[in-house]
Amino acid sequence: MGRQSDARERLLTSAHTLFRDRGFEAVGVAQLCTAADVNKGSFYHFFSSKRELLLEVIEGSWDETGLLAAWEHEAPLRPIVQLRRYFEDLYAYHYADREVAGRVRGSLLSNLALELGGRDPEVATRLDDFFTRETTAFANLLTAALDSGEVTVGDPERAAETLVASLHGLLILAKVRNNLDVLPANETELLRLAGVVQPWL
Amino acid sequence: MGRQSDARERLLTSAHTLFRDRGFEAVGVAQLCTAADVNKGSFYHFFSSKRELLLEVIEGSWDETGLLAAWEHEAPLRPIVQLRRYFEDLYAYHYADREVAGRVRGSLLSNLALELGGRDPEVATRLDDFFTRETTAFANLLTAALDSGEVTVGDPERAAETLVASLHGLLILAKVRNNLDVLPANETELLRLAGVVQPWL
Repeated sequence: MGRQSDARERLLTSAHTLFRDRGFEAVGVAQLCTAADVNKGSFYHFFSSKRELLLEVIEGSWDETGLLAAWEHEAPLRPIVQLRRYFEDLYAYHYADREVAGRVRGSLLSNLALELGGRDPEVATRLDDFFTRETTAFANLLTAALDSGEVTVGDPERAAETLVASLHGLLILAKVRNNLDVLPANETELLRLAGVVQPWL
Repeated sequence: MGRQSDARERLLTSAHTLFRDRGFEAVGVAQLCTAADVNKGSFYHFFSSKRELLLEVIEGSWDETGLLAAWEHEAPLRPIVQLRRYFEDLYAYHYADREVAGRVRGSLLSNLALELGGRDPEVATRLDDFFTRETTAFANLLTAALDSGEVTVGDPERAAETLVASLHGLLILAKVRNNLDVLPANETELLRLAGVVQPWL
């Protein structure tokens, strides 16, 4: 057994990987415990059920990427530069993840949305919260970029939703092709995906 | 037991629904047989395994929607009108499906891509074939629309890939929200999703 002190953290990390790679239903508590090097008693000390663990994994996904939250502390940066940072971080995350796994693994939240979105209303609501926060963060950036004349866009809210949807959709393609080239090459192409024009380019 | 003569067809239909709603791993042969009103002996008469059934379900998804295949017979229509037809069919399909199921169920192929794309190379290849055919059909239409001056678009192939990715991504959002309003309202908005401009609008 690993150290008790970080057993909870190890369970969260193992659950993130296993749920993403194999789905929620296909993974049992025993498998989670083995992967995290934790015994079953400890599991139920920390989580009342596999589903409670899942809800925490979803909650933590926001903080884990830290991408959108980080923007709030970078207010002095121009919106377009913040968007570039986000894009570079996203790209770096998926390339690093491919190195670790030996293949493209895509996004945990899309997987969960498709597996459980139609069956578990609470999980669906938590996932929707996540997508909404992501969309709001993009929309705020696009609105700021519009106000400062850095971009031209009809409806920032709608464009933001499209950006989020496109990225999740492209990660599905990347997964079946085991190839990250379908991701946009830079933040300009990312914006074009949503019909956002940068008049100075 | 239902009639033997269409037992194979019933298995394909039940598998489509069950794999979409519950995933591939979570659904067993017994459950498929019950839903299709077919006995196990008949199942193995038609399919050597659940996975062989899956491969046929994927193959049939192309013909089932019939959307893209239909375009080939509509050559006299302007590209933009063909795109409108596709959009209307897609919309009608998901609204009708919501009526039947009582909720938004999304796309079988996205579900399978996320569940199996990283683990079963043959399934991944079949799914990629599907996405590629869909992308090619869109790209051909966009190229024709570009040639006839109906749209302005930088790279039709890339825009087509974005359209396919956006639609799959938006269907994920529609599923977790149980709300089809996230889908584009019409073919003009669909095109805008991929940065395609219709200069006359």
